[in-house]
Amino acid sequence: MQSITFKPIGVIHNTITNPKDAPRSERMADGITATVEIFPEYADGLSDLEGFSHVILLVHFHLSKDYDLKTLPFLGHTKRGVFATRSPRRPNPIGMSIVRLIKIDGNVLKIANTEMVDGTPVLDIKPYVPLPYKREEIKLGWLEEHISDRDENLP
Amino acid sequence: MQSITFKPIGVIHNTITNPKDAPRSERMADGITATVEIFPEYADGLSDLEGFSHVILLVHFHLSKDYDLKTLPFLGHTKRGVFATRSPRRPNPIGMSIVRLIKIDGNVLKIANTEMVDGTPVLDIKPYVPLPYKREEIKLGWLEEHISDRDENLP
Repeated sequence: MQSITFKPIGVIHNTITNPKDAPRSERMADGITATVEIFPEYADGLSDLEGFSHVILLVHFHLSKDYDLKTLPFLGHTKRGVFATRSPRRPNPIGMSIVRLIKIDGNVLKIANTEMVDGTPVLDIKPYVPLPYKREEIKLGWLEEHISDRDENLP
Repeated sequence: MQSITFKPIGVIHNTITNPKDAPRSERMADGITATVEIFPEYADGLSDLEGFSHVILLVHFHLSKDYDLKTLPFLGHTKRGVFATRSPRRPNPIGMSIVRLIKIDGNVLKIANTEMVDGTPVLDIKPYVPLPYKREEIKLGWLEEHISDRDENLP
């Protein structure tokens, strides 16, 4: 199948510069604020976004140079299929993060709860709308055993 | 910033072949089943995924050849910034869909609740883990007025 080429629409500015210092997910990034600079040619696409409290960022894991089909996640001691994890070392290193939107100032978004390192290229922004699934109908596979409280303490 | 090239890891097979017949979101695709064929070289990455009831698909909106920074969403009569919508006509035409995983048979996933048309290239699969946000703390911007029941009837 044909390859697909994307061009970043923006970049994340954060005080986290080393991936080793980055929280492992947005759940663990409570209180960390950062900015997303959207390049001026795309700024008009940000209209109407400020009313949303949370947005989905799709980013390029630009520091990830290769992939493993089986990978050791940060939870547990068993290698898992990469598509059952959020490892950055995936065939297409696209990261997804749902962050809190604090405000938009022109072409700059101020966000909270992000685990992305400084300089991460942004590919897309989408409004976050929660799914109407009930927690009881969602099964979390190998992650279930790492969850102490089914409702509040998700990893 | 540098362009990024991705190679599809698989393809969606669905009876929906015309985008005009596709539901506008996975919320409206209840009961529609489809298959995701993961190319054999990536099949090992599917280990441990079957325990999850829902998975996130990132796809290439391959029929989308251009973008609009302001776009008319299917709800309402007002043009909105593209990043505040899920329009496929976006600068980087990446689609995100959270679907129900029915079973995995080798390198083929059987899924339900998908709105993706036949032949859509798949870029990534991630396990779906719900966020611990409460519905009351989530603001849906311009979409709020289109939601009659805050909990169940999300578009």
